Amino acid sequence: MEKKNIVFIAKSLDGYIAGKNGELDWLESIPNPDNIEMGFTNLMQEIDAIVMGKTTFEVVCHFGGHWPYTKHVIVLSNSLKEVPEQLKQRVTIMKGSPQEIISALHKRGYFKLYIDGGRTVQEFLKADLIDELRITTIPILLGGGFPLFGDLDLRLEFEHIESKVFLNQLVQNWYRRKRK
Amino acid sequence: MEKKNIVFIAKSLDGYIAGKNGELDWLESIPNPDNIEMGFTNLMQEIDAIVMGKTTFEVVCHFGGHWPYTKHVIVLSNSLKEVPEQLKQRVTIMKGSPQEIISALHKRGYFKLYIDGGRTVQEFLKADLIDELRITTIPILLGGGFPLFGDLDLRLEFEHIESKVFLNQLVQNWYRRKRK
Repeated sequence: MEKKNIVFIAKSLDGYIAGKNGELDWLESIPNPDNIEMGFTNLMQEIDAIVMGKTTFEVVCHFGGHWPYTKHVIVLSNSLKEVPEQLKQRVTIMKGSPQEIISALHKRGYFKLYIDGGRTVQEFLKADLIDELRITTIPILLGGGFPLFGDLDLRLEFEHIESKVFLNQLVQNWYRRKRK
Repeated sequence: MEKKNIVFIAKSLDGYIAGKNGELDWLESIPNPDNIEMGFTNLMQEIDAIVMGKTTFEVVCHFGGHWPYTKHVIVLSNSLKEVPEQLKQRVTIMKGSPQEIISALHKRGYFKLYIDGGRTVQEFLKADLIDELRITTIPILLGGGFPLFGDLDLRLEFEHIESKVFLNQLVQNWYRRKRK
């Protein structure tokens, strides 16, 4: 069974995933009147489960509307004790190191994982557990905020797979981890 | 006469223009055996002069070999008093705010400017004096270093013009400042 950890995320031109005060409005600064699909639906079909941090989980819950994920969601948190009643079948809380989380999920039959959320992505990259980056760049400089990438102990080389431009403005780049 | 300030620079996937100890070796991590041209020659033809900080100037001088610029170079520095004898016809030292520098250069007939170097690019962006960004992304996470972008007081929106992929690995994106 192929094992793969994928990041699929949007960032500003200067590398932020949220503004100085958590602003996300700029993610929709390029109008998408026809609701053009930018890879999320395919990703949902491709993966077995989603791993995210508590902050991202809370942001998604706060969006309201329908639950956006068709696969099981694992929320990483030391403090969260339970999830809202209506999400109990769809969401599991876990804690542990990235390696422990991955091992536990593989044992449960979840092999292809979508890793989401700033801190979670940074921790998984630090443990060199990300196999694919699919990053959409919004053409705006925020000038500050929560960065997608964090400090690493070692450089990580990737291989460029593909670039796509959506709505004539959003550049999505796919990269695969180059392992020797 | 069209006035334009252009940034043409390479960055890592995580947004650094130099590693933690100033390393630049990763800029050549993708072999370019046929010396494929990625826009530098065209840029040199297009511009009237180059503006860079003292650090970049010193890095370029340190490279040795032939002087890479065919247009006049303006080095921004408060401390530098003179340039090496053999560069006196090609390099001028100036000081002042980005706006003062631009005004002075326009008066001298330099209208299209290539703005280079980390601190200089950041200062010019802070003053909202950059019209075009031409950024080449190398598929490597450095995990730290000198960032291309810095803090801004205001968000700056850009318009995506074009994406090119060189050597199947290097993505170059062109953006134009969207002014209302």
